[in-house]
Amino acid sequence: MNVDPKRTVAELKELREMTGDANGAQRVAFTDIWVRTREWLKAKLAALPVEVHTDEAGNLWATLKGDSPRALLIGGHMDSVPNGGWLDGCLNVLGGLEVLRRICAEFNGRPPVTVRLVDWADEEGARFGKSLFGSSACSGSLNMDEARGLRDRDGITLPDALKRMGIDFERVKESRKELTNAAAYLELHIEQGPVLLDLNKPLGAVLGTFGVERHAITFRGQAAHSGSTPMNRRRDAFLAAARMSEEIYRIAARSGNGVCTIGSCKTEPGIVTSVVAECTITLDQRHLDASALARMLAEAKKASERFAKEGGVEVEWRRLWQIEPRPFHPELIDMCDASIQETCGISHRLPSGPLHDAAEPCGVGIPTVMMFTQSLHGISHNKIEDTKEEHLEQSVVAFDRLASRAMEWVTGNS
Amino acid sequence: MNVDPKRTVAELKELREMTGDANGAQRVAFTDIWVRTREWLKAKLAALPVEVHTDEAGNLWATLKGDSPRALLIGGHMDSVPNGGWLDGCLNVLGGLEVLRRICAEFNGRPPVTVRLVDWADEEGARFGKSLFGSSACSGSLNMDEARGLRDRDGITLPDALKRMGIDFERVKESRKELTNAAAYLELHIEQGPVLLDLNKPLGAVLGTFGVERHAITFRGQAAHSGSTPMNRRRDAFLAAARMSEEIYRIAARSGNGVCTIGSCKTEPGIVTSVVAECTITLDQRHLDASALARMLAEAKKASERFAKEGGVEVEWRRLWQIEPRPFHPELIDMCDASIQETCGISHRLPSGPLHDAAEPCGVGIPTVMMFTQSLHGISHNKIEDTKEEHLEQSVVAFDRLASRAMEWVTGNS
Repeated sequence: MNVDPKRTVAELKELREMTGDANGAQRVAFTDIWVRTREWLKAKLAALPVEVHTDEAGNLWATLKGDSPRALLIGGHMDSVPNGGWLDGCLNVLGGLEVLRRICAEFNGRPPVTVRLVDWADEEGARFGKSLFGSSACSGSLNMDEARGLRDRDGITLPDALKRMGIDFERVKESRKELTNAAAYLELHIEQGPVLLDLNKPLGAVLGTFGVERHAITFRGQAAHSGSTPMNRRRDAFLAAARMSEEIYRIAARSGNGVCTIGSCKTEPGIVTSVVAECTITLDQRHLDASALARMLAEAKKASERFAKEGGVEVEWRRLWQIEPRPFHPELIDMCDASIQETCGISHRLPSGPLHDAAEPCGVGIPTVMMFTQSLHGISHNKIEDTKEEHLEQSVVAFDRLASRAMEWVTGNS
Repeated sequence: MNVDPKRTVAELKELREMTGDANGAQRVAFTDIWVRTREWLKAKLAALPVEVHTDEAGNLWATLKGDSPRALLIGGHMDSVPNGGWLDGCLNVLGGLEVLRRICAEFNGRPPVTVRLVDWADEEGARFGKSLFGSSACSGSLNMDEARGLRDRDGITLPDALKRMGIDFERVKESRKELTNAAAYLELHIEQGPVLLDLNKPLGAVLGTFGVERHAITFRGQAAHSGSTPMNRRRDAFLAAARMSEEIYRIAARSGNGVCTIGSCKTEPGIVTSVVAECTITLDQRHLDASALARMLAEAKKASERFAKEGGVEVEWRRLWQIEPRPFHPELIDMCDASIQETCGISHRLPSGPLHDAAEPCGVGIPTVMMFTQSLHGISHNKIEDTKEEHLEQSVVAFDRLASRAMEWVTGNS
């Protein structure tokens, strides 16, 4: 009994046809298109001997009961960013659906362990600026006070938007019970980066999701006339901030496989005839290793203080956000790697720079692993996001093999 | 017969009282306060045997006819930026008024050469963003097509604003005839920078006004996910732009006494989770020597192209504005220096970073020099702009001595 990877590709195309337009995928969470997407998915699940329900946080669960209540979870998300790609999120759910079909067939509807497919609600956070909504509500990590105050561009609060979906915001964490018997969590996703493409490898086993430190750094100097102020009398906030740019490349290089990004720079007064009085940059640092991430942050702080001192300016750091690294389970990583080897003859282990729902079950101790499929152009969140069909098909086959191994592993651990 | 520098300081204070508020001087050109300032100045001039009129560009001229029509011009501007300082501009006019009083008295109203005091209209360009309006109209360098389209924040055009002042925009260049017999031009001004303060010298002889090259430089790379894009795969527009910041300090150092300023930096998309796709900085370069200025510009262009190439990004330069250096007259500089030495026992020669009306008569070949008075804090265009009263008084005395020397020089050259 085998999966039919061509069916998954066909279903992805069907979904693209139904929920995309000339600008890309439009499956933004809690919108009409997203609701229609869910209905379409439920119709597919109705053909299987699975119990389907939506939890308190709006996550959709399809459960195939097994001999043991211990459950293998396969997760993904149907929602997309506005003008998004056709694969981000839904490859996981539709690949998982195909795996579920195979397991149903192979075990005549009663596998040795329970198998559950989950479509997390609002992974992207496109509307309210807060990603991993459904999975973080389920894991319990969602900051309720922060989330309660979130508003979309029209001023609608997240609780109000949820209410229209029949979701009571104050009860979303009751979805935690869904994880009671979870024994392992698997997620298939496009890489969204260029690593596998550069290596010419179709699939990769993911080591974990990067920890993230995100800060705004403000340098404060002195506005001064660009004509009358000698160079050695300047307290140039832009100079100190600009020196950070090369420095973060050195910090990332020293860190091994960490990444650092200065994504924005603002200058005050920001006029052509004045030395910059105040310059604020944002710094995003990511690493799979918590101590390496802490070291990257400490090095950046130290460098900023040195540049500030040397330039006669002041520097202030403000944390915007952080999350710890979420290393995946070593045995599951090995199984993922073996499944890829078996399918493609070649594999690669790599960390995930972007966050994924997988970080949430991983964070509460559920053994977790992800599999990455090569992304063309190394680009996602864009209509040009794409992956070779051959690689999509290989990913469904390899992911199914991983699911088989994981089921055996869960059974053995029961 | 001597000048009374204490009277000048008293008149500066009277003007401050009349035209300033808690935020500083409010003598913005073509406003009611500026009109009132002019009336106040005319009342002072009425006590002297001078002919007073306003030219086609709104410049106010007070002429003391001499035996020769060849004229020594003393120029300044009564207008200020909004929330400006109490000395910028008006020190020249009121110091010049005092010199005119002394000459009237000394020569019984008939000096050997004609002496003229001019209050240029709208030196600051605060309302329409175009400085040196009156003096550039008079010299003929004003770009009529550009000026015709200028609008203030309320959408009022410069021609309409001038009309309300009784000035016909299309005729402003007819003021050129005022310069027919001009034989020398003198201007006294606060330094607006920290050079004399650092040297602890009250006054300085100005070598000329810097030439200026002003450009917007845009680097174009590729937006990329801050988590999934390896450092060596980035085409980071901010990195290339940031490298320019240290580079301009090296370029300025190599140039001798030039200055370079990056005054603003804008990033696109400018979000914390993306490598910067497009970064635009503004670069302002100034030097007293035209070839050194050209070299500074060429070096900056070359560096930007190297940084672009090394970072895999593109770079584009767009000129915002330029003006050639305006070196002052060597003999007048010597006279200015000697007058300062005589008054203070010490002098200093320095270029002017900021532009001044003096650049306009200088640009049409009228022998020109400026005298600078030390600025406290090295700051102007701000209510904290200040100069020690002792230095203000010395500046009037030294400027009067310069006027005597210049009159003799003009007489000798007649």
